[in-house]
Amino acid sequence: MQIDGQQYRTIWRGDDGLVRVIDQRWLPHDLRIATLPDRTAFATAIADMWVRGAPLIGATAAYGVAVQMDADPSDSSLAQTWDILHRTRPTAINLRWALDRMTAALRPLPSAARTDAAWALATAIADEDVAMNRAIGDHGLALIAAIAARKGRVNILTHCNAGWLATVDWGTATAPIYRAVQSGIDLHVFVDETRPRNQGAQLTAWEMASHAIPHALIVDNAGGHLMQRGEVDMVIVGTDRTTAQGDVCNKIGTYLKALAAHDAGIPFYVALPSPTIDWTVTDGLTDIPIEERAQDEVTHVQGLDATGQIARVRISPAATPARNPAFDVTPARLITGLITERGVAPASAAGLRALFADRAPPP
Amino acid sequence: MQIDGQQYRTIWRGDDGLVRVIDQRWLPHDLRIATLPDRTAFATAIADMWVRGAPLIGATAAYGVAVQMDADPSDSSLAQTWDILHRTRPTAINLRWALDRMTAALRPLPSAARTDAAWALATAIADEDVAMNRAIGDHGLALIAAIAARKGRVNILTHCNAGWLATVDWGTATAPIYRAVQSGIDLHVFVDETRPRNQGAQLTAWEMASHAIPHALIVDNAGGHLMQRGEVDMVIVGTDRTTAQGDVCNKIGTYLKALAAHDAGIPFYVALPSPTIDWTVTDGLTDIPIEERAQDEVTHVQGLDATGQIARVRISPAATPARNPAFDVTPARLITGLITERGVAPASAAGLRALFADRAPPP
Repeated sequence: MQIDGQQYRTIWRGDDGLVRVIDQRWLPHDLRIATLPDRTAFATAIADMWVRGAPLIGATAAYGVAVQMDADPSDSSLAQTWDILHRTRPTAINLRWALDRMTAALRPLPSAARTDAAWALATAIADEDVAMNRAIGDHGLALIAAIAARKGRVNILTHCNAGWLATVDWGTATAPIYRAVQSGIDLHVFVDETRPRNQGAQLTAWEMASHAIPHALIVDNAGGHLMQRGEVDMVIVGTDRTTAQGDVCNKIGTYLKALAAHDAGIPFYVALPSPTIDWTVTDGLTDIPIEERAQDEVTHVQGLDATGQIARVRISPAATPARNPAFDVTPARLITGLITERGVAPASAAGLRALFADRAPPP
Repeated sequence: MQIDGQQYRTIWRGDDGLVRVIDQRWLPHDLRIATLPDRTAFATAIADMWVRGAPLIGATAAYGVAVQMDADPSDSSLAQTWDILHRTRPTAINLRWALDRMTAALRPLPSAARTDAAWALATAIADEDVAMNRAIGDHGLALIAAIAARKGRVNILTHCNAGWLATVDWGTATAPIYRAVQSGIDLHVFVDETRPRNQGAQLTAWEMASHAIPHALIVDNAGGHLMQRGEVDMVIVGTDRTTAQGDVCNKIGTYLKALAAHDAGIPFYVALPSPTIDWTVTDGLTDIPIEERAQDEVTHVQGLDATGQIARVRISPAATPARNPAFDVTPARLITGLITERGVAPASAAGLRALFADRAPPP
């Protein structure tokens, strides 16, 4: 999408052969482009969240394998790279998917052929992500257009950043929004702040502002009230992992918004490229371990201080510990539909199987 | 309660006759005591949230009337004081209750008698708050003790600060916690951060740390997940305003926690001194206007910076506006019980009427 009128992806290989990413830790205050010269840099970029979002993590891992194949295309190098990169975010299903795909394609090849094949496949994975998200945008556009036809301006609430910054381009939850704006639909976006890391306040708000889309930042506490009072027409969120029965593991707090939407009778959609579907898991509540991240993400907040410097402040007493579960699971019963690149599926085993009969394991 | 082993209330009249409060804007980083010499200072202290919490706002207003009667005990002074102080937080039912009570008691008196009567009544209102909260603590203690008897350690989640800092002493939601700890019950408190003003991170966490009560700060997004996974045994929150049918208007985000508790089958209690009951309102969803506060509460966060100074940082792009509804309404159907100074009532018109037959208007 666009920054200052210029077209960007979140990850790309430059003319000099080097892979670059937007180092998202400094947004919205500072746009920094980082070069990732080796496997260690890729592992750091994923683990320390220079890049985040399931699809972008997958594409980054794929490029990371390619860079490593440039340095050492041996079997042991390939196997080690899977381990090193997988360990950076063990719950990210796209990460594993991309690593598995790269490994499966490269392992049968002679070492000498692996480098070119790795670059070609990494590029293909990135391009496929762009195409999938664009397709998600078209299917979601139809849902937004139906509401717009009924009531005019459409108010959409979103949580975290499932925007183009979380993918290679377009975003997942934002793809329908960008497509609707391009189609001339009048809409307004409520952006959940998304504590503890504030991806909504920092990234989604920045995306909306960069594209001049009407929006308002709200604290994570506010969405239930706005839904109760009829100020929200639909919710669209992303997902890190979708189970075979349509449960969704997404950024912590998603479940609370799904409960509120359900209570108010507001449609709650999850936008997802099919690689986020984990066909090996059925019940998200019992079978998905939830990552606990560092306490200081909760006790500290980063922003721009009065002097224009990026600073962190501690909001709680020094003696207070914190708990920091990073994701929660929204059960399928609270989800109106799953917007995939093949269409909108009911959030159920049958719904997903109908769209992805070629991928779903036998029942 | 205690700070560094010394006993405090949140508001008191010193030996020099001056009223002092804890200026809570600087907690947990700095304990500042402020003197409120005149009506203007009281209005500022309430409007700018040096003091907050329904019961403390009421007591502060009562002391504010007394200070003004010291300066000018005339009829017009009394009437103006009602207006000036009421305007500071127009949705705070305790504020109006205290001002009405002071005015009704003082207006019939000759001017010369008003000053002493005003001080006596303000002191009585403060003392009554302490006694009511202690009684709430005893009724809530019985609920906690029942869970402790069944399972040992009790995990309690609370939202915002309905602690002793929100009252004259004891707190409302925290009174059962303090009484349970005094009774030797093993408990642990999950403290919701409570964006946008972070009263949980700043005040409730500070209270828990000051009393060495095991606790953990969590972001507002996390409570639903913890309830889903069985890590919370009960929720206790406060309320700014309770309707005659048991709907509760409390800090924004309370409703989301009530939905999650309901979904997980976890008891959700609201602790309230009876003056927060507004017998004139039945349906909280349709009949309570919700205050919208300044955008910068959402776009900025205050904390302690790396140099130990209290600083504010902006978390979102400069071009991003914010919406900031300060309260939400939790419908009675989601509330397990209302813990009052007279006992625990079902959240219903009949439940409240049974405990407060002497106050409820005729049906």
